[in-house]
Amino acid sequence: MEKSALQIARAAYQPKLPKGLQGNVSVKEGVPTQSVADQEEIKKLFPNTYGMPLIEFVPGEAQSYAPFNVGVILSGGQAPGGHNVICGLFDGIKRLNPESKLYGFILGPGGLVDHKYMELTADIIDQYRNTGGFDMIGSGRTKLEKEEQFEKGLEIIKELGIKAIVIIGGDDSNTNACVLAEYYAAKKCGVQVIGCPKTIDGDLKNEQIETSFGFDTACKTYAEVIGNIQRDANSARKYWHFIKLMGRSASHIALECALQCQPNVCIVSEEVEAKNQTLDDIVTYIAQVVADRAADGNNFGTVLIPEGLIEFIPAMKALIAELNDLLATPEGAALAKDQQREWILNKLSAANKAVYESLPLGVAAQLTMERDPHGNVQVSLIETEKLLSEMVANKLAAWKKEGKFNGKFSALHHFFGYEGRCAAPSNYDADYCYALGTSAAMLMANGKTGYMAIVKNTTAPAAEWIAGGVPITMMMNMEKRNGEMKPVIKKALVRLDGAPFKEFASRRNQWARETCFVYPGPIQYFGPTEVCDQATKTLQLEQAK
Amino acid sequence: MEKSALQIARAAYQPKLPKGLQGNVSVKEGVPTQSVADQEEIKKLFPNTYGMPLIEFVPGEAQSYAPFNVGVILSGGQAPGGHNVICGLFDGIKRLNPESKLYGFILGPGGLVDHKYMELTADIIDQYRNTGGFDMIGSGRTKLEKEEQFEKGLEIIKELGIKAIVIIGGDDSNTNACVLAEYYAAKKCGVQVIGCPKTIDGDLKNEQIETSFGFDTACKTYAEVIGNIQRDANSARKYWHFIKLMGRSASHIALECALQCQPNVCIVSEEVEAKNQTLDDIVTYIAQVVADRAADGNNFGTVLIPEGLIEFIPAMKALIAELNDLLATPEGAALAKDQQREWILNKLSAANKAVYESLPLGVAAQLTMERDPHGNVQVSLIETEKLLSEMVANKLAAWKKEGKFNGKFSALHHFFGYEGRCAAPSNYDADYCYALGTSAAMLMANGKTGYMAIVKNTTAPAAEWIAGGVPITMMMNMEKRNGEMKPVIKKALVRLDGAPFKEFASRRNQWARETCFVYPGPIQYFGPTEVCDQATKTLQLEQAK
Repeated sequence: MEKSALQIARAAYQPKLPKGLQGNVSVKEGVPTQSVADQEEIKKLFPNTYGMPLIEFVPGEAQSYAPFNVGVILSGGQAPGGHNVICGLFDGIKRLNPESKLYGFILGPGGLVDHKYMELTADIIDQYRNTGGFDMIGSGRTKLEKEEQFEKGLEIIKELGIKAIVIIGGDDSNTNACVLAEYYAAKKCGVQVIGCPKTIDGDLKNEQIETSFGFDTACKTYAEVIGNIQRDANSARKYWHFIKLMGRSASHIALECALQCQPNVCIVSEEVEAKNQTLDDIVTYIAQVVADRAADGNNFGTVLIPEGLIEFIPAMKALIAELNDLLATPEGAALAKDQQREWILNKLSAANKAVYESLPLGVAAQLTMERDPHGNVQVSLIETEKLLSEMVANKLAAWKKEGKFNGKFSALHHFFGYEGRCAAPSNYDADYCYALGTSAAMLMANGKTGYMAIVKNTTAPAAEWIAGGVPITMMMNMEKRNGEMKPVIKKALVRLDGAPFKEFASRRNQWARETCFVYPGPIQYFGPTEVCDQATKTLQLEQAK
Repeated sequence: MEKSALQIARAAYQPKLPKGLQGNVSVKEGVPTQSVADQEEIKKLFPNTYGMPLIEFVPGEAQSYAPFNVGVILSGGQAPGGHNVICGLFDGIKRLNPESKLYGFILGPGGLVDHKYMELTADIIDQYRNTGGFDMIGSGRTKLEKEEQFEKGLEIIKELGIKAIVIIGGDDSNTNACVLAEYYAAKKCGVQVIGCPKTIDGDLKNEQIETSFGFDTACKTYAEVIGNIQRDANSARKYWHFIKLMGRSASHIALECALQCQPNVCIVSEEVEAKNQTLDDIVTYIAQVVADRAADGNNFGTVLIPEGLIEFIPAMKALIAELNDLLATPEGAALAKDQQREWILNKLSAANKAVYESLPLGVAAQLTMERDPHGNVQVSLIETEKLLSEMVANKLAAWKKEGKFNGKFSALHHFFGYEGRCAAPSNYDADYCYALGTSAAMLMANGKTGYMAIVKNTTAPAAEWIAGGVPITMMMNMEKRNGEMKPVIKKALVRLDGAPFKEFASRRNQWARETCFVYPGPIQYFGPTEVCDQATKTLQLEQAK
């Protein structure tokens, strides 16, 4: 494998560990826990894994551990630092007993079910220290939720003498990790299951989980290129850049990038929903910022747009729901494509018709022409950044006729997502992930199951971080999913009463009118600590409260 | 101005200077020079600035210099390091005499003509050390080529007591700098003009100019995100990423990124032209790589595409020329948009008709519907990355029916340009630009005009770099521009017999079939020298010859 100079230099980085994980580790247990809501239902669903205590690792006496074999699974979308979780896990179990073995299941949870695996030896592990990507063993989106999957998994687990499985994933994967833990516990299989909080989206966080890994690196990578674009905008002084940012539904990434870069506009989906804003409200807001800056002679700027925006606009949600219903009727399904628009306009309710008519023709057509295998509108295909800039252009053209706008408006478009999901982890993510992996090893060594590895106090220097475990059931509530009530880990959207949003809201008017761009530059691995080791602005603001 | 931690830390970086520029500077002159071609014509056009010697700066005795005022102009597109040229210039003239003053003309060459300027004081200069962008004084695309512009400029030059003008720009801007130098010399105005080689495109290079500044940083920034995408591709194992890279016409950026990242495919426009390849040839080549990898179970990969590709495909060039002619006829100009296609198909010559019919409908429509103010097809609007992936998908679908392809093909698209033009300069560009600026100061102090500042031997440590100046006329030849023969600096396209292309060509078959991705990671400013101070692969290969 040919490597870049940075890959080679970075391989030598030794992630910093919290004091509690540096030497011999002792377990400090808290009091029994409760789920965040719906305690009775969740207790009933998880009789063997409910009510366990919070765990903290502290320096302790030397102990001897029998060798134990571990299996690890990467689940879902890539996030920077996944390899370091595995490295921490590997080093952790080898430290306790060099005879212990680590197996990686290939291409995600499906590897467990289909018995596809490889032993992860020191040679392999060393190739992937501090690297981005999930290519060591690959990832996948198979959901582990059926009994037959659990049983198939059990076969290979027994064959390989595996004592514990670590599932590295987002909220759904960790919920499923807990279901699996409960299943194996109920059946007394002697198999533990431990989760690790992963997702660049940043929506897996709560009182116990400060942040999901990968969020830090992904945001810093996006902030780098956004900053570069802002510098370009401020140099060329003739373009508005509409930049869409990945993030399934929550706007944490857009908000964090806004806090880092101070763009002229950042839309936050959660605010749009809370204020019941229409597409026209958003377009009018952006157009007003453009017009105000034009009045100052500044015909340039940047607009950040969260990927999930469309589904947070109540009027768009209503329109999409009605379109899905209409196109599911026999008549709707049989329509020729060139007759769709007229037919739809005749059928839609007045409110939804008005929204549909306000959309640029191309977007309206896209909504109905390319549907998913279930016949549903594919919201993710909508190029929101182009939709908004086109509608802003139309509005400004109308304002120009009315004399309300006298500038120029020329837009460029960007979408950043794949650029950051597999970046090499920042020091923060490299350390955080390595500590998570080490914690997972310690949870397993101490016989725990149904826990997620956690590391807290991460805005302090790494030695002061606090590592431990949280019972997954503690973070659960019951939610409706596909029409059924299910126990799930509560997804964390941007809180409008949270410190990050409040900071943004208090400054955005100035950022909109003036040019307050900040240029974060690329992630640095070797420089001064204030450059290399800072947590995200989101985390700093949340922890400062 | 609020700054990021990196901006603050990076401001303190002291660019490394060649030994010849570190202390007192002496001028070492070579023998008289000749233009690379068309010597007689060029000599006639530049009687006062032709035939001057090459200049090298070497350590010398202390000398005293009278204060002299200098004006600086940024011309054309942004390139990382522009601010450092200005900083080197400022420090250079202040070192010779602290009473000297530097004026920046605002928003490009137009600032000279329109008398828009600002004095660049130490306070301002210090805000921009080692930063990206051209926002200190802005840039512009006004061409300085008319006598009335020269005369308007002369007014403000005299008013400010300016002795010399530095024009930082690409090949055209430096050609114009020489025309201006000749004009002022012929009129004995006592105004010197010095050029500096700027452009991320990398096409301003020759025997005297090793590289244009900005190419290093821009390529490294693109290579960072391409590497991240490749790691994602290799982790998710289900997408082909089609990545278009900025670069007006030459493919240097795409080639350099390929050498850094080792993608599965990189198209080089100059090769396409030399081999007289058709669009179908290119599509077939990519599709074959996809099919071959699919046969190995690898339904993923990366394809790099230079922005200027379309105009290098002889058949497309011919089609576009005929379309321009057809649509310029009264009948063609008067056509309703929905009748264009049929009319065009009836009129086109057989060969061009076949090409036109092979294009996806959307692209074909785009070619004729959105034309520039002169009625010409706007090649730059064509989304080449989508055009190619759509045609590859069609070809693979046909091959699937024939049993020649049994994989999956799912494509994602990216275009990188604005992400890199204003990145903070790498150490290489920071040092190179600072040395260029210092050289420019020394050329002026020594009474030179019609020179470009140069720095050579830049693959060695910076102390061993060789700074000096080259008569701009030495790099000229006569070329047809808009139907007229003009003296211009020869543009450097990718040479198929050059070391960079030969290296690429010798390895691409392996890169295509296997997965040889390299992940360069973000530009580092503080780490080990092999990580922070390397020149581009292009330059290393060219210098190694």
